[in-house]
Amino acid sequence: MSVFTTVTPGQLSAWLRNYSIGTLTQLEGIAAGIENTNFFVTTTHGRYVLTLFENLKAGELPFYLNLMAHLSRHGIPSPRPIASLANEYLGVLNGRPAAIVTCVPGNDLQQVDAGHCATIGGLLAEMHLAGASYRAKMPNPRGPRWLRAAVPKVLPFLDQRAATLLKDEARFQALYRRADLPRGVIHADLFRDNVLWDGLRVGGIIDFYFACNDALLYDVAIAVNDWCLNEDFAVDHERTMALLAAYHEVRPFVAIEREAWPAMLRAGALRFWISRLYDLHLPRPGVLTHAKDPQHCQRMLEQHIAREAELLRLFVT
Amino acid sequence: MSVFTTVTPGQLSAWLRNYSIGTLTQLEGIAAGIENTNFFVTTTHGRYVLTLFENLKAGELPFYLNLMAHLSRHGIPSPRPIASLANEYLGVLNGRPAAIVTCVPGNDLQQVDAGHCATIGGLLAEMHLAGASYRAKMPNPRGPRWLRAAVPKVLPFLDQRAATLLKDEARFQALYRRADLPRGVIHADLFRDNVLWDGLRVGGIIDFYFACNDALLYDVAIAVNDWCLNEDFAVDHERTMALLAAYHEVRPFVAIEREAWPAMLRAGALRFWISRLYDLHLPRPGVLTHAKDPQHCQRMLEQHIAREAELLRLFVT
Repeated sequence: MSVFTTVTPGQLSAWLRNYSIGTLTQLEGIAAGIENTNFFVTTTHGRYVLTLFENLKAGELPFYLNLMAHLSRHGIPSPRPIASLANEYLGVLNGRPAAIVTCVPGNDLQQVDAGHCATIGGLLAEMHLAGASYRAKMPNPRGPRWLRAAVPKVLPFLDQRAATLLKDEARFQALYRRADLPRGVIHADLFRDNVLWDGLRVGGIIDFYFACNDALLYDVAIAVNDWCLNEDFAVDHERTMALLAAYHEVRPFVAIEREAWPAMLRAGALRFWISRLYDLHLPRPGVLTHAKDPQHCQRMLEQHIAREAELLRLFVT
Repeated sequence: MSVFTTVTPGQLSAWLRNYSIGTLTQLEGIAAGIENTNFFVTTTHGRYVLTLFENLKAGELPFYLNLMAHLSRHGIPSPRPIASLANEYLGVLNGRPAAIVTCVPGNDLQQVDAGHCATIGGLLAEMHLAGASYRAKMPNPRGPRWLRAAVPKVLPFLDQRAATLLKDEARFQALYRRADLPRGVIHADLFRDNVLWDGLRVGGIIDFYFACNDALLYDVAIAVNDWCLNEDFAVDHERTMALLAAYHEVRPFVAIEREAWPAMLRAGALRFWISRLYDLHLPRPGVLTHAKDPQHCQRMLEQHIAREAELLRLFVT
């Protein structure tokens, strides 16, 4: 989206009196972002991001804000929500639930090598370990129930071959039990756009608004599907092994995760294929999505199905 | 002190496995500091300060660590303690209570102007406001009880004139009731050494190990006694007014604070005079203090007593 809800410097200056982060020096809308209205806010203390939540419900927001606070207090580079003088992360600004978080340094990278993938693997494992002491729970909003409801809605927009693939994969995933895999808090959207690099170091992981409780391996699969893919939509061996080995060094995989690996990669491809089809063909009114190509995910899924043995061979043991 | 307890890179690497801040790349002892052993620790995530507590009791440490965490979650630039995988700020390393906090950027400044003093005044007021929601309590370890015990011990080291001044001032302060003044969490040691400047912005306030609950105005007095003093040990008008006005803008002073102002400046001078006499004449065994000149505080106290009307005139109304 772009900016949905306007905020003037005067309104924000008044609102900032509820905080102890100095006085406003600059306010600037942020174009990126699909679900919320975001602004860069500079004060005499530093740089922050103000988010007005357009779609998420106020009752769900503490899960995300407290999670960011929890992870950053464990040293995971992520935005830190700032508490108001009333000691609350969540406020209300211009009728919207709103929060102000620290601005993490860096820029996203689209061209990544095995070194970047190793950094991401290690960091993802650290995030999973740090998340183990986070108490709040959130079911995956893009889990089996969502899948069951979404598949019939997007099917009419697909050709015969794609429709068959989607139905078959949805049936396969519905039968697949993830409950035995190690579970915890996952980011669930760790794409390259959501990692800001400050040189060779990660300045911050951003956009925790899909975070939830699910299989940890599913989070790894979502990351590999974005960070380690070749132009032919198959996984790149070197980058995949680098990411998995660095993860394994911090949180060693268990045997059942190896068996589940190809299915998790397919689950990740399916979930984003469906949501991209949705964004393209059934956009929500008033939400200006920068719709991404669903076919990208379809090709990825086809490759994963075709190359199961190869995927298993690449998995660290 | 310097480094009391040694820590090897091997010991620290093993200890850091309890945290999610990457792997050790550099370890370096820090010479400054009187009460604890400190190290700069660099990991693949960034730069931290490791503190091994030599004198403070483990039971008291959560007050300080939780306070730093509380203030930084409110946007006050201060070190953030990092929680372990067991979700605790306080650990044990080589037999000492130990904690690792983020390394705040910047350097201390000894030459300061009215602009710096205004920044400090505003920040101190913000810290007092942010501290209002901090629940834990700590009586001032350098309060009236300490004063009563310390005065007779340092008196033998003073000449007649200084001894009379000390006894008279201690008597005056013992009769002075602070309880009616606005109270809260105070830093209690906001000297120029404890503020790191990152350009014109404060990168961090450090050394919270004298923080306690006391009169907020006493904290302002301690700051003015260090930031706003002239070479003749009297307060500089421009810097004092800048600090007080910026503070007042964020947390307006109340009428009784005006009346108490000269007494608070004197209380600050007395407290540091006594502790410097102590460090000079009665050093604790094994503590390598960089003893500071006690006479500096004596002169300041004399000036404050002589210039009460001037101090009242400078106070914002």
